[in-house]
Amino acid sequence: MSTAFTRRTAITRRTALMAGLAPLATRALAQAGPFRVPRWGVFEASFNGPQSGNPFTEVTLGARFQHEHRTIDVDGFYDGGGTWRVRFSPDAEGEWTYTVRSNGIVDARTTPFLCVPPDAGNHGPVAVRDTYHFGYADGARYYPFGTTCYGWVHQGDALEEQTLATLRSSPFNKLRMCIFPKWYAFNHVEPPYYPFERTAAGAQDYSRFHPPFFQHLERRVAQLSQMGIEADLILFHPYDHWGYSSMPAAVDDRYLRYTIARLAAYRNVWWSLANEWDLVKTKTLADWNRFFHIVQEADPYGRLCSIHHSKVMYDHAKPWVTHASIQSDDFSKTQEWLDAFRKPVILDECKYEGNIPQRWGNISAQEMVRRFWLGMTSGVYVGHGETYLDPHDVLWWGRGGTLHGESAPRLAFLRRIIEEGPGGLNPVPNAYFPCAAKAGEYYLYFLDYHQPAEYTFDLPETAQFQADLIDPWKMTITKLEGTHRGKTLVKLPGAPGMAVRFRKA
Amino acid sequence: MSTAFTRRTAITRRTALMAGLAPLATRALAQAGPFRVPRWGVFEASFNGPQSGNPFTEVTLGARFQHEHRTIDVDGFYDGGGTWRVRFSPDAEGEWTYTVRSNGIVDARTTPFLCVPPDAGNHGPVAVRDTYHFGYADGARYYPFGTTCYGWVHQGDALEEQTLATLRSSPFNKLRMCIFPKWYAFNHVEPPYYPFERTAAGAQDYSRFHPPFFQHLERRVAQLSQMGIEADLILFHPYDHWGYSSMPAAVDDRYLRYTIARLAAYRNVWWSLANEWDLVKTKTLADWNRFFHIVQEADPYGRLCSIHHSKVMYDHAKPWVTHASIQSDDFSKTQEWLDAFRKPVILDECKYEGNIPQRWGNISAQEMVRRFWLGMTSGVYVGHGETYLDPHDVLWWGRGGTLHGESAPRLAFLRRIIEEGPGGLNPVPNAYFPCAAKAGEYYLYFLDYHQPAEYTFDLPETAQFQADLIDPWKMTITKLEGTHRGKTLVKLPGAPGMAVRFRKA
Repeated sequence: MSTAFTRRTAITRRTALMAGLAPLATRALAQAGPFRVPRWGVFEASFNGPQSGNPFTEVTLGARFQHEHRTIDVDGFYDGGGTWRVRFSPDAEGEWTYTVRSNGIVDARTTPFLCVPPDAGNHGPVAVRDTYHFGYADGARYYPFGTTCYGWVHQGDALEEQTLATLRSSPFNKLRMCIFPKWYAFNHVEPPYYPFERTAAGAQDYSRFHPPFFQHLERRVAQLSQMGIEADLILFHPYDHWGYSSMPAAVDDRYLRYTIARLAAYRNVWWSLANEWDLVKTKTLADWNRFFHIVQEADPYGRLCSIHHSKVMYDHAKPWVTHASIQSDDFSKTQEWLDAFRKPVILDECKYEGNIPQRWGNISAQEMVRRFWLGMTSGVYVGHGETYLDPHDVLWWGRGGTLHGESAPRLAFLRRIIEEGPGGLNPVPNAYFPCAAKAGEYYLYFLDYHQPAEYTFDLPETAQFQADLIDPWKMTITKLEGTHRGKTLVKLPGAPGMAVRFRKA
Repeated sequence: MSTAFTRRTAITRRTALMAGLAPLATRALAQAGPFRVPRWGVFEASFNGPQSGNPFTEVTLGARFQHEHRTIDVDGFYDGGGTWRVRFSPDAEGEWTYTVRSNGIVDARTTPFLCVPPDAGNHGPVAVRDTYHFGYADGARYYPFGTTCYGWVHQGDALEEQTLATLRSSPFNKLRMCIFPKWYAFNHVEPPYYPFERTAAGAQDYSRFHPPFFQHLERRVAQLSQMGIEADLILFHPYDHWGYSSMPAAVDDRYLRYTIARLAAYRNVWWSLANEWDLVKTKTLADWNRFFHIVQEADPYGRLCSIHHSKVMYDHAKPWVTHASIQSDDFSKTQEWLDAFRKPVILDECKYEGNIPQRWGNISAQEMVRRFWLGMTSGVYVGHGETYLDPHDVLWWGRGGTLHGESAPRLAFLRRIIEEGPGGLNPVPNAYFPCAAKAGEYYLYFLDYHQPAEYTFDLPETAQFQADLIDPWKMTITKLEGTHRGKTLVKLPGAPGMAVRFRKA
């Protein structure tokens, strides 16, 4: 990943303000003891230096990490109060070293540290696996069961802690969340922190980030990581009254690099370039393509990276898009999207369970559960959100808090079923009813509003299968009599909304 | 309609077998007394003649009916046993006359008869009204609430009488039914009557119709008419093991003309050129176009005429198609179809309530009711069918009998609501929720799986409206407090599946 280093060097040659930064500390987050960092944890080295001028724009800092034959260059960042930091997440156990550079000058000293085995529950980052699916770096499968709390980190500690408590007992292992605060229906609150320094008059100084904003964000991302929840970080969005959606291009780019320098080392980070990119009227497609290139260049880990649309879909076939993030409830198109993109497809906005007037925020719990089942049996993943009216406008989708709906326990039930399965499930082509299968092993049918009293399923002749009738709403699994092989007639209850699972006996 | 006369004369000039047919009787169906026929009733004159040769192919008979300035030529038909008949349905009260022609020779005698006012319950034939809707000839509105019993007239009297009894207490006012018997899953029975004479060896003589088959069919059509049910007669279909779907073109054409001569005078007849025309692999698009032209030419009343598809839609914009008969459950396309065809659209196969293994025959009652509501609030009409497994394979959709499902009472409820409305309802363009409206007077919203706890409806400022909350499944109508005008916030129960009606106070 030498591109980051090359780039940074070029940018900062204009001034050699810093003859050298003084090492302040080296610490490994998520594990006590210096110079030791768990695999996929966050290693951090900090340095102090003068606060004169504008340290955000006039000073650059980076480090080259080395392990055996590999070198990885990462950018550091100024964290205020005369402190600079470099973060790094090592992906292999054993000895690593790093050297620091600042404003183009490389420090000759090489510092070693040790990467140790991960803690229990640390499976590493999630990446694409088997074309259409996901997996953790340690080999475990990862099935996204995401929810949406766009502005939850801008609500103050009381509500944010409540959100974390809710998430802890929820089925969700991914959270769509905005970095910039959100100004929108049900979301008319000023945040405790702003991303840029503000003058006494309230104007923003786009040349100076506000470190407490990012420190707070990082703490929340780290807490999600501890809970096994992926943070799908939305870098830009149109719901704005502060100006963050219409900053100069150079500020956009600096914001991206700063954010990546601070956050990319957290293993649960996913980049979502935007929510509803096509509603950000101040930016062109060329801007979004440039943002993707910056993320590709600046993120040394190649974290998952997507972009979410409102009406106009971005071309998810482009190589820098790791998975398609889609706003739709048209499940008739899932195979078309899988074929077109050859990537995982997440319908992360298929409307929300709730009762607000807005059509996208008032589908029933039954319909939300149905959509998850349709998605899971059609080879795509689905996202949850909840929008029940609240006297204080604390809607889960916007601000977090607690869940009021009825879908979440059913999604937990579905998640358990999927996680008990063999993984790598793909849709059976032209199945009569949607069916996700691992050929010869496992078949999960969803019958939706169909209610056959019997049906001849077409199983392989190569094995015997045991069948279960699953009621996704009542959350029951009933073992069906006998075993099944080949074309097999199965008696069913003739009730709508059922699923049928076949597993190799 | 001189084309029928011209055509017939040309065809029959080859032989002047008949010097003249002897008048046998003249009768007016549906009312006692000779020479009197109610408006939109069936007037019939019969004649006798020799049975030698092939009276079906060697003799033609027709009549010219005259009322004031109008003349209408109709074809007669041979009804077996030396009897020929001419049927006619007069559309105006007062004195009519007719003259007979046979094998090109016109009888000079002119016979008068009287058209008298219709009986109560006789509203005349249904035709297209207000571009997208239907109405009876007497001005009453007609909203199709159709069901499907493809083969009900081929089941023998016991089952057929049961079907009639079921229909009598059902909400249905249109019946899709095949003229030819049907051979298909759940429909493997030989009919009591066949449309053509059969030799002792079982071969069919396509040159000789079997009059008892048609007499039976006519009796059933007349019984439906008495019950106020339109007979949507399917002229061809692919579900065959007798050869009716692969007859020579000349036989097809003769069958069409014979059927029209016999049945067109029944005011409740609609022509459906085919069910699933694209599955009749023996015929080309040119054949279907020719059939439409024959119907146009031979039917002096211009009865409603459509064609139903499986996968490939016929071009319903063609001028000889009176309304689009569509197999689909994609309600997202309704506006597209209305715009493309500028005609009424009937989704007369949107799948059936039932529990058979076939996907098209096992949707839940809830889903069937939902589809009717979606259609009615989107400006299109929907058809019902029922397919519950039966030990004797008597499924309503195929053979009639009784209804076992739960949708029919809910469709009766919906029909009552629609018939109480002002008529001429059209979909509100880009409505947030599907809404059929008569501007300034009446608005019927269907919220489907949406469950807003409140919603600001956009009513005209010109009047006050009373609002009702309708539960389509529980069949309740609850008057909401107050009156409404302009943009008006309405509190709702926050439950899915509701409808809201606004009527001018």
